[in-house]
Amino acid sequence: MDSAEFERRRQSVVAGLATRKIDALLVSSPPNVRYLSGFTGSNGNLLIWKNGTVLFTDPRYDLRAREEVSCQVKVTRGPLVLDVVARIGRIGLRRIGYEQTRMTCDSFEALKNRLPMKASLVPIASWMEELRIIKSPAELALIRRSVETNSRAFEQVTARLKAGVTERALAAELEYRMRRLGAEKPAFDTIVAGGARTALPHSEPSSARLEIGGLVMVDMGALQEGYSSDMTRMLYLGVPTAKVKRTYRAVLEAQLAALDAVRPGALAAQVHQQARRVLKSYGLDRAFVHSTGHGLGLEIHEPPRIGKNGKTRLEAGMAITIEPGAYLEGFGGIRIEDTVVVTSSGYEILTPTSKELRTI
Amino acid sequence: MDSAEFERRRQSVVAGLATRKIDALLVSSPPNVRYLSGFTGSNGNLLIWKNGTVLFTDPRYDLRAREEVSCQVKVTRGPLVLDVVARIGRIGLRRIGYEQTRMTCDSFEALKNRLPMKASLVPIASWMEELRIIKSPAELALIRRSVETNSRAFEQVTARLKAGVTERALAAELEYRMRRLGAEKPAFDTIVAGGARTALPHSEPSSARLEIGGLVMVDMGALQEGYSSDMTRMLYLGVPTAKVKRTYRAVLEAQLAALDAVRPGALAAQVHQQARRVLKSYGLDRAFVHSTGHGLGLEIHEPPRIGKNGKTRLEAGMAITIEPGAYLEGFGGIRIEDTVVVTSSGYEILTPTSKELRTI
Repeated sequence: MDSAEFERRRQSVVAGLATRKIDALLVSSPPNVRYLSGFTGSNGNLLIWKNGTVLFTDPRYDLRAREEVSCQVKVTRGPLVLDVVARIGRIGLRRIGYEQTRMTCDSFEALKNRLPMKASLVPIASWMEELRIIKSPAELALIRRSVETNSRAFEQVTARLKAGVTERALAAELEYRMRRLGAEKPAFDTIVAGGARTALPHSEPSSARLEIGGLVMVDMGALQEGYSSDMTRMLYLGVPTAKVKRTYRAVLEAQLAALDAVRPGALAAQVHQQARRVLKSYGLDRAFVHSTGHGLGLEIHEPPRIGKNGKTRLEAGMAITIEPGAYLEGFGGIRIEDTVVVTSSGYEILTPTSKELRTI
Repeated sequence: MDSAEFERRRQSVVAGLATRKIDALLVSSPPNVRYLSGFTGSNGNLLIWKNGTVLFTDPRYDLRAREEVSCQVKVTRGPLVLDVVARIGRIGLRRIGYEQTRMTCDSFEALKNRLPMKASLVPIASWMEELRIIKSPAELALIRRSVETNSRAFEQVTARLKAGVTERALAAELEYRMRRLGAEKPAFDTIVAGGARTALPHSEPSSARLEIGGLVMVDMGALQEGYSSDMTRMLYLGVPTAKVKRTYRAVLEAQLAALDAVRPGALAAQVHQQARRVLKSYGLDRAFVHSTGHGLGLEIHEPPRIGKNGKTRLEAGMAITIEPGAYLEGFGGIRIEDTVVVTSSGYEILTPTSKELRTI
């Protein structure tokens, strides 16, 4: 990402200050700090006002900040808040926007109690997340790279997969391959579940061994240059039963129907409704216990939410997952998930991995 | 951890309600929910009052919650806060303690605005973190296990280490071995830095290759059954120069001096002071840019903070790191870190790995 892109983003913040009747924006959550400055450290506050931007950080990140950001950097010993309020006072900023969905109550109090007399704090709701919802071409290129790394790791590991391996060992292999292929780390804790444990949508890899005659669920994502990917695929060890095949077909059909509804102007809830409609026709609507998908980017879960109450209208440049599933206690669960970009004419599936039920 | 231990912890919360003049405690941060109930899901609220405890969670975690906790479980569709306030109203609880260091501003508002008329929210400051600061024998056993896994992974990987490997590849190997040896995942992003990059105390593994004639810093920790470990060791590829040897000796002496100050009743700041005193005698006090250590347990950074302003008096059962370092731009940095338990007579180093500078 070049510095021009960060400057463009900060300019759009500056343009939004007047609309929101605020003089400045204070950003302290790492993904939003990174989005607006490129800074990757864990401790940074960014103050943006009409005539400038300052990144406040601590001495551990001195060199890194100077390498990564094009705005002014202020390295602070002690709590960043002291330097932040001093600067607010010096510039004479009055109304300061803050991230109420990210800031903790005590950080808010610490900031509020130290503000200059005439300054006040104004919540910005999900302004930052709305800015981030449409990805730039440079961001989409990074998401695509993350998706490709993730799928390559999946292919390399499953090509050698045999029954008898533990869920944990398989998860460890997948994450190792991902890293060797260029990821910083997994975008979330990899899910590997075998047999009846696939009925838990969010199971943790256990010491159970993957056995012949069982489903295997793999839900994995890479984090590469800060950007996430997310994919779920199902494997079957042995010859799938008729019930497995039928359930798989139902979920795949639901996923394709949801994908088909993805286009600019479509309501997120309508996309979800398509997946639900198909599963219902198979008598599986009660087995579909979660939403159809979510946005992703610098975080693994971002707006829009593709679910029953999803009020977002899709727009070209949104990166989302499409991942319906069906979970039957005692039998198992099936989920199929791709990372997808909304395009001007519909959608593009970034995930290159085949969606056939893979038998081993 | 058996359910009796969780019940004992909740009893100590109940005993503390009266002292704090509150009727109930609402806990929503994952490590504190886990500490008081054993629940490992990412979305749980725990309400504890004189006559009971309820865990609120969502349908994804229904089965897991029932397996893990001994208190009542309430599975909620939609935001947990609605069921939480309904229960507060039904029991007639008035003053509800909340975690202001963890709760976000908008969660606080959502809770406050829905509370029954006569109920109010009372901040509990660091009460939970104070409860957690002394580890039980069962917790110390888990920390010891995590430390041993971590050190074994380090030994197995460094035994095969050769120059030419990238920082990232070495970090990936270390994390993979850790997992194969029983860890759920790394307790934090593994640091591997080579050559002059060791001068950054918190560098991220890069694609740079480890070269003959250079220092290597490895800072790694495992998360096993929820408990953390933390260790830093230095390697040297080739024959260390006199300056490397001298700096290494200084940091090792500082680490031993700090360890020597660890005992019940010692002030955290005094332990830090011992490390600083030694480094100063080598002219390296300005190169020591961070604090000497931190508590660890369910989180990788917990109280007490072993630094300049550390006001905690050490007590038997605290688990802490001792990790002084010296960082010289252009030359490199050296840090030596052990995980340590404060005992009734002084301290025990849990980390079994040798502290000699390892040459390869």
